[in-house]
Amino acid sequence: MENKPQRIDLHNFIEEISKGNSSFLSRAITLGESTLSLHRNQFRDLLAELIPNSGSSIRIGITGTPGAGKSTLIESLGTYLIEKHQKKVAVLAVDPSSELNHGSILGDKTRMELLSRSKQAFIRPSPSKSNLGGVTQNTREAVYLCEAAGYDIILIETVGVGQSETAVHSMVDFFMMLQIVGGGDDLQAIKRGIYEHIDLLVVHKADQDKINQASHEAANFKKMFALFPPKESQWNPVAMTCSSKENKGISELWKMVVNYVEQTQNSGYFEKKRAAQNIKWHLELQQDQLKRFLEENPKLNQGISLINQEVEQEELTPLEASKRLEKLLLKLFPNT
Amino acid sequence: MENKPQRIDLHNFIEEISKGNSSFLSRAITLGESTLSLHRNQFRDLLAELIPNSGSSIRIGITGTPGAGKSTLIESLGTYLIEKHQKKVAVLAVDPSSELNHGSILGDKTRMELLSRSKQAFIRPSPSKSNLGGVTQNTREAVYLCEAAGYDIILIETVGVGQSETAVHSMVDFFMMLQIVGGGDDLQAIKRGIYEHIDLLVVHKADQDKINQASHEAANFKKMFALFPPKESQWNPVAMTCSSKENKGISELWKMVVNYVEQTQNSGYFEKKRAAQNIKWHLELQQDQLKRFLEENPKLNQGISLINQEVEQEELTPLEASKRLEKLLLKLFPNT
Repeated sequence: MENKPQRIDLHNFIEEISKGNSSFLSRAITLGESTLSLHRNQFRDLLAELIPNSGSSIRIGITGTPGAGKSTLIESLGTYLIEKHQKKVAVLAVDPSSELNHGSILGDKTRMELLSRSKQAFIRPSPSKSNLGGVTQNTREAVYLCEAAGYDIILIETVGVGQSETAVHSMVDFFMMLQIVGGGDDLQAIKRGIYEHIDLLVVHKADQDKINQASHEAANFKKMFALFPPKESQWNPVAMTCSSKENKGISELWKMVVNYVEQTQNSGYFEKKRAAQNIKWHLELQQDQLKRFLEENPKLNQGISLINQEVEQEELTPLEASKRLEKLLLKLFPNT
Repeated sequence: MENKPQRIDLHNFIEEISKGNSSFLSRAITLGESTLSLHRNQFRDLLAELIPNSGSSIRIGITGTPGAGKSTLIESLGTYLIEKHQKKVAVLAVDPSSELNHGSILGDKTRMELLSRSKQAFIRPSPSKSNLGGVTQNTREAVYLCEAAGYDIILIETVGVGQSETAVHSMVDFFMMLQIVGGGDDLQAIKRGIYEHIDLLVVHKADQDKINQASHEAANFKKMFALFPPKESQWNPVAMTCSSKENKGISELWKMVVNYVEQTQNSGYFEKKRAAQNIKWHLELQQDQLKRFLEENPKLNQGISLINQEVEQEELTPLEASKRLEKLLLKLFPNT
């Protein structure tokens, strides 16, 4: 009986998280990452209580290829926000490959040394799941919890590749991309269609000796952005230079985010986007729930185990197994 | 009634595909990509008939970041195999982002001009699905169909990023990675854990003026590979240089693949790996089938539509919706 999953003290969790207790915040996020229905149900109850206190932060997505300096930028920006604007900053990550790669993103808090020592900051590595859907859902829910715990700014880091980028875009208010000065892969990125999604492009590592080149590159991006069709947000993507190492461009970057938030809150787009993201979250929850419903049916499970054994022993081909499963499903769940 | 999905003439399809009719092969692959159960069931029957004639090809995965020259290598290697070894070559792709990016991989057959004109070659772009699981399953099934149609070599191209790479690795016999000479991102790649999965690293675009640098880089990779723990295949990953533009290194590359196949067929690893991949395919089919079973239940569908409407009209929060769905599921499918 020792391994029986324990019920959490819901009331205690709500109270501690609302006080900003980061250790309870961490534990709550871990509970949400569980695949057990008991845990997921408890988590759902907890979240339902806390969600009314969420929603007041600014959610910022940060993407860029490995080496673009996402961690150093987050370190600089986070420290700046805490020191100059008295903000509380949470850093989350979406990296579906983190299990395979032993947590390449944020696995190492030492990459954000200053920030990880600050009491005003909360840093959480990417959930280790093998599928992007699970990672996305957990991160989205972690955002609400962080907000309920009083964090004003949520920074969500992701690797600059395809689907995880799209996932992060679907949960943030503002999306920025870092590109290293001299990276020269602008054409590749256009081809990959990423620029359509960003609100800000940062030509990063624009240190003293590279500032001219960086300014030139940023100017080229601006020209390119001017050719894009207008976005629904009516915000024209901006390009700017930044050096996290020399701490240059950070306050300008923040000003840009504030401008964006003001403009889109005035136009109503900010709320509209959040409502759409809420529906997206609902649909993700639904998919997950449908999947778990079947997975946790004992008779179905038993039948599937038998089928799987026969496939493993090469007594059944995958296609024969598929026909067997079809029959089993119809038997267990006759059309109602 | 015009839009009612049509039954295919199974017998005719089997006959034409077995004769190597590439237009029927194309249509069969399209049928498998359908999400309608009628189509999927027909496809399953077709596949069940054709699978006994499949399995005799060599399946090769090719990965590398955008710009590494995957298309040009496939063009050179494919043409070489057709002309020098009288092979029939099929080229497939796994790129889950292809819908978003309007088909960045293989969307444009002109990128493989020679190969696309050859009657001994079959080129098929990545399925346009929004989730990797669907893309993976479709591509795996396309492999069997191509084999049944008489293709000896299946080349599967993928972008050099996380999960799609892992997916391709799970359906090929041999996995190679292209890295552009002077790319210099070797450390990043190590961090990303990709090298653990490859059988061959090609330092690509090793044209005349860069051959020294390329050889140096290949030598460094060899040193690195020597430090890896032995693989279950007992094959030591190889590094070599290649210039598709100057047609250099292609025959050496092919020799390496042949060596690998001989060695692993003799050791029994080749068959063992295919059996494991077969089980993986079975589990993918199963997941897909369970998902469709619920999606296609009319009463459940109706209930979900109502719930979704209320969420869209903000009458229900996502978490309240989740509780409603739980009740609905228990009502429709009482535990048996």
